[in-house]
Amino acid sequence: MSTKIGIIMGSASDIPVVEKGTPTLEELGIEFEVAIASAHRTPKDVENYAKGASARGIKALVAVAGLSAALPGVVAAATTLPVIGVPVKGGAIDGMDALLSIAQMPPGVPAASVGLNAMKNACLLAARIVAASDDELTTKLEAYAAKEAQKVRDSRKKLENLPAAPAEAY
Amino acid sequence: MSTKIGIIMGSASDIPVVEKGTPTLEELGIEFEVAIASAHRTPKDVENYAKGASARGIKALVAVAGLSAALPGVVAAATTLPVIGVPVKGGAIDGMDALLSIAQMPPGVPAASVGLNAMKNACLLAARIVAASDDELTTKLEAYAAKEAQKVRDSRKKLENLPAAPAEAY
Amino acid sequence: MSTKIGIIMGSASDIPVVEKGTPTLEELGIEFEVAIASAHRTPKDVENYAKGASARGIKALVAVAGLSAALPGVVAAATTLPVIGVPVKGGAIDGMDALLSIAQMPPGVPAASVGLNAMKNACLLAARIVAASDDELTTKLEAYAAKEAQKVRDSRKKLENLPAAPAEAY
Amino acid sequence: MSTKIGIIMGSASDIPVVEKGTPTLEELGIEFEVAIASAHRTPKDVENYAKGASARGIKALVAVAGLSAALPGVVAAATTLPVIGVPVKGGAIDGMDALLSIAQMPPGVPAASVGLNAMKNACLLAARIVAASDDELTTKLEAYAAKEAQKVRDSRKKLENLPAAPAEAY
Amino acid sequence: MSTKIGIIMGSASDIPVVEKGTPTLEELGIEFEVAIASAHRTPKDVENYAKGASARGIKALVAVAGLSAALPGVVAAATTLPVIGVPVKGGAIDGMDALLSIAQMPPGVPAASVGLNAMKNACLLAARIVAASDDELTTKLEAYAAKEAQKVRDSRKKLENLPAAPAEAY
Amino acid sequence: MSTKIGIIMGSASDIPVVEKGTPTLEELGIEFEVAIASAHRTPKDVENYAKGASARGIKALVAVAGLSAALPGVVAAATTLPVIGVPVKGGAIDGMDALLSIAQMPPGVPAASVGLNAMKNACLLAARIVAASDDELTTKLEAYAAKEAQKVRDSRKKLENLPAAPAEAY
Amino acid sequence: MSTKIGIIMGSASDIPVVEKGTPTLEELGIEFEVAIASAHRTPKDVENYAKGASARGIKALVAVAGLSAALPGVVAAATTLPVIGVPVKGGAIDGMDALLSIAQMPPGVPAASVGLNAMKNACLLAARIVAASDDELTTKLEAYAAKEAQKVRDSRKKLENLPAAPAEAY
Amino acid sequence: MSTKIGIIMGSASDIPVVEKGTPTLEELGIEFEVAIASAHRTPKDVENYAKGASARGIKALVAVAGLSAALPGVVAAATTLPVIGVPVKGGAIDGMDALLSIAQMPPGVPAASVGLNAMKNACLLAARIVAASDDELTTKLEAYAAKEAQKVRDSRKKLENLPAAPAEAY
Repeated sequence: MSTKIGIIMGSASDIPVVEKGTPTLEELGIEFEVAIASAHRTPKDVENYAKGASARGIKALVAVAGLSAALPGVVAAATTLPVIGVPVKGGAIDGMDALLSIAQMPPGVPAASVGLNAMKNACLLAARIVAASDDELTTKLEAYAAKEAQKVRDSRKKLENLPAAPAEAY
Repeated sequence: MSTKIGIIMGSASDIPVVEKGTPTLEELGIEFEVAIASAHRTPKDVENYAKGASARGIKALVAVAGLSAALPGVVAAATTLPVIGVPVKGGAIDGMDALLSIAQMPPGVPAASVGLNAMKNACLLAARIVAASDDELTTKLEAYAAKEAQKVRDSRKKLENLPAAPAEAY
Repeated sequence: MSTKIGIIMGSASDIPVVEKGTPTLEELGIEFEVAIASAHRTPKDVENYAKGASARGIKALVAVAGLSAALPGVVAAATTLPVIGVPVKGGAIDGMDALLSIAQMPPGVPAASVGLNAMKNACLLAARIVAASDDELTTKLEAYAAKEAQKVRDSRKKLENLPAAPAEAY
Repeated sequence: MSTKIGIIMGSASDIPVVEKGTPTLEELGIEFEVAIASAHRTPKDVENYAKGASARGIKALVAVAGLSAALPGVVAAATTLPVIGVPVKGGAIDGMDALLSIAQMPPGVPAASVGLNAMKNACLLAARIVAASDDELTTKLEAYAAKEAQKVRDSRKKLENLPAAPAEAY
Repeated sequence: MSTKIGIIMGSASDIPVVEKGTPTLEELGIEFEVAIASAHRTPKDVENYAKGASARGIKALVAVAGLSAALPGVVAAATTLPVIGVPVKGGAIDGMDALLSIAQMPPGVPAASVGLNAMKNACLLAARIVAASDDELTTKLEAYAAKEAQKVRDSRKKLENLPAAPAEAY
Repeated sequence: MSTKIGIIMGSASDIPVVEKGTPTLEELGIEFEVAIASAHRTPKDVENYAKGASARGIKALVAVAGLSAALPGVVAAATTLPVIGVPVKGGAIDGMDALLSIAQMPPGVPAASVGLNAMKNACLLAARIVAASDDELTTKLEAYAAKEAQKVRDSRKKLENLPAAPAEAY
Repeated sequence: MSTKIGIIMGSASDIPVVEKGTPTLEELGIEFEVAIASAHRTPKDVENYAKGASARGIKALVAVAGLSAALPGVVAAATTLPVIGVPVKGGAIDGMDALLSIAQMPPGVPAASVGLNAMKNACLLAARIVAASDDELTTKLEAYAAKEAQKVRDSRKKLENLPAAPAEAY
Repeated sequence: MSTKIGIIMGSASDIPVVEKGTPTLEELGIEFEVAIASAHRTPKDVENYAKGASARGIKALVAVAGLSAALPGVVAAATTLPVIGVPVKGGAIDGMDALLSIAQMPPGVPAASVGLNAMKNACLLAARIVAASDDELTTKLEAYAAKEAQKVRDSRKKLENLPAAPAEAY
């Protein structure tokens, strides 16, 4: 096995956001690596990291960034791997600055944004990308989805103080 | 060869947006198919389409939607393939309703949003996903990026009425 | 008597929002039921719930959802009962993502949004829908409104530290 | 038969918005009436209209308003009938002022907002409210939904210049 | 002397906002009265209050309201006195719903909005309106402005930990 | 008679906005004057204009400004007359930059904002301020409001293609 | 004399925006140069351009960019010259995506944003930077400001259809 | 040596924001001074401060302001020195009112905005302006940037609980 997903963040202060998603990758048994490099403070490191990712077996990159959030775009410019951006909540209008910076890339260099702080979904989307050519992982993702569904159903028992809809309603 | 990318839109009125990106797929020599099904008017068709996509060889799905833009999420819920959403400009606050609906998925079911009407970038991101396990396509994407770069350089000749920076400045 | 109003939320974490409104239904003596099903994690459960609601005597559905808030739309697509959405505060721009996702449905499948976290108003609107063909409930709603008005008048005694307008001013 | 739905707008300039929805009511065979009265210029007329609506057999009210959009709230305050607001596009931030004014009612007096200019959906939601106690209309709404679904499917023939997904994909 | 300014709020929960401004009126020696009446829960009380204000000697009205904030408009519709609205912070997008509801009145019935929770400025603006025909109050307002200016100058001594600009710089 | 209302705009390009309101002042028989001075390009002119307004009999000032819209605040800082700001549509987020700049003044120096381009309402609000100490003008404003109400009622005849509510409904 | 100001844009499509400001530089007699290089399509060109600017005598850089607008930040990361960003109108929420991307840089690498499309102000700010160590240019800027002020005063003659404030009012 | 940078804030309550940036100036060995004067409460002080700044050797001004944030513009109108605005977080839509007020200046009088509360970047941008004609300071800024880059690299050791990318990846 080898590293399939590369996660890069612009500042160590984003580690708590990153850690919202990495347990999902561990649960799915996907190897990943985590890097710190800043699009503005260490742009050369970002470029090197992105350029070398494919050679290390990486199939998808997740770039975590707040504020003007140039990181996902700079990464996307230095590789042809798919790049998913995670806008960090905070900054202006509740993190919308980061979300827009990631999604609104100029034509020709693509990046896509998941929701604010949505590291878990970014990891799952990266996993789906890896799974697109890995049947075993696809099976794991199907099991993961089934487990998520079951969690929703199990949560119905929390309706104890409310008149719950009957089980046969679903 | 076979169909690698599935494009789905909620309404035929989105065809002009879709056509902003499909020439790029043709240029890259990637086979794709285009579907119309509505998350609200024909939800079962959406579900069937998404569930069957993988079996037809599809590696990435692009879902185009405006307004409350439920389509990418409904597609993502019915498959484990990676889903990229394209928010259609219009609606409320200039299309921000669609962009947020796509990006802000609940944890567990991922979708990611490119920019408003950014079908070209959605297609390129889908192509990168396909290329993650296709070296030949990776080479084509590198050539595509080089061509885009050259276009930028060639465009400098349009600076005729302005004092252009000297060529050696770059 | 029978269940008249169905309340559905996408996640048990929305129970506190739901509980802001259910006491009003109890006060009005309207039977209701509460369900948990996710538009993205258990879409089939949502569909089944919505399709069966009418047969259980339900006249109005309240769907509570945050983030990209697809639930009200998915419910509305599976029934012809009226659907009121309650956007949960949080997410992007203070919950505007959810409010827009609910209100901005495509033409043909209607949903309407009350305010952020406004479960009480959603329940009252659902009660008004039930009352549209129930004179007794209409009378109760008129009494409820009169009581609300009296509360506003009674609250004037809290103006103790301020020069209150004279009673005859109203 | 009798008038079931009352539509009220604050200004004759909103007639074009209203006319986006009334053909749907005619298609469904629902009788309706249209009124003009302004929450700020003729508040007494609004109050009279709302107070008398129930006695004329009306089951649901649709209030169309732009800018600060007080109309739906003022109507809701004068009746116990369900009130659906239609925010008119224009004004500030593309009509968001109207949408928020309608949805963000204080607790105790409910109104709900459909999308910007979404008169068709407001009429359909009003029809669903009427149908909640009218089985014949429910059947018509089901047929309407089926027809809408068929329109989506028929629109696939417009994909002539694109590689359409095969029919069996849905 | 007599009551010159009427302050009306829609809910007793707005008393803390009101109390941010009333000390300024006391400092200026302007008599005022405070009322509670809701545009949606007690609309007749609002109308009566507004209609009778002029007869009690009131020259300006301040209306405090949050959420969809119909109060200032409903007051303005029932009187020809000038009405200043104070949007209460909270609600959607940080209180922008209230601010827009107040400012965006339809042509013909004016209201104007001060800033979010800016009760002090609303009171000062009301005082300026009263002063427009009261030379003694004008003199007090000039003294008030001079005192405010002096406070800014006095606050420079708080620059103790920073290299303060020299006094002659101003 | 004498000049009662002063209108100031920052640029001659705002004349069309100003002319949306001045006919209303003429109709009410209120004398007014119009000035052009820029808070940033001719700040001394603005200061002089504002300082001298009261001595010329002016009771209320209307300041029209777009973009960062400092004009109303700069005017308010140089006089104790009441100042109403008119944010000019355009700029960022559809003129919200101007609206916020006007309304969000620091505590101590008040300005209030009417809606975007709402010059007519600004003139009416200024007229109400003048009328607060002018019974004859109050009578004119009441007649104006009655005429506006009648216009709404007359506009009902435009409902010719729609089933109009019966006259007795109001 | 030598080139003092460098202007860089990401795409030749921004030339019309650039040309809104360059006549001002010509009027002030400041030498400048114009470059085209894209932060995402030709990042190495951007880096080279920024790194070499100081050696060519450039004292200030103006970077013009729309959408996710990474250009000003990437330029700022490669030089210690001051960088002013010009957000291009368009994109999401009327260009707010670009404005926020420029202003919201991470701590340590500064960029500042002028208004949307505000190339003229960017050029003037760059000119002020050059003038900070150039007394002759300072004199020219003072003359420019005086001329701008005179233009405002001259524009008062356009008030022909309105009752202009008397000349002595200013 | 002499004072090179002038910092002005509208209220002593902004001192904590100012203190986020001044240590950076101290670290760079740049002399600066700090002033308090309000565009609305002490406009003459602001004007005097701005007009005299150049004579005291100041090369760049930083103006810190919240809410309607007129200060940077008023300063820019009274000097030809470059002015950088720092919008203070708070106010409406999370401080966007201040950011827009600063950036959206009318053509002819430039100001530029850094991010919300971004005093550190404002100081660095001011330092870059000073450095544009000061080679020694340029060298210090290059060292500062190198130190910032090293901090990013050093922060990688915080990845202890995550699978860090190998050192050779950068």
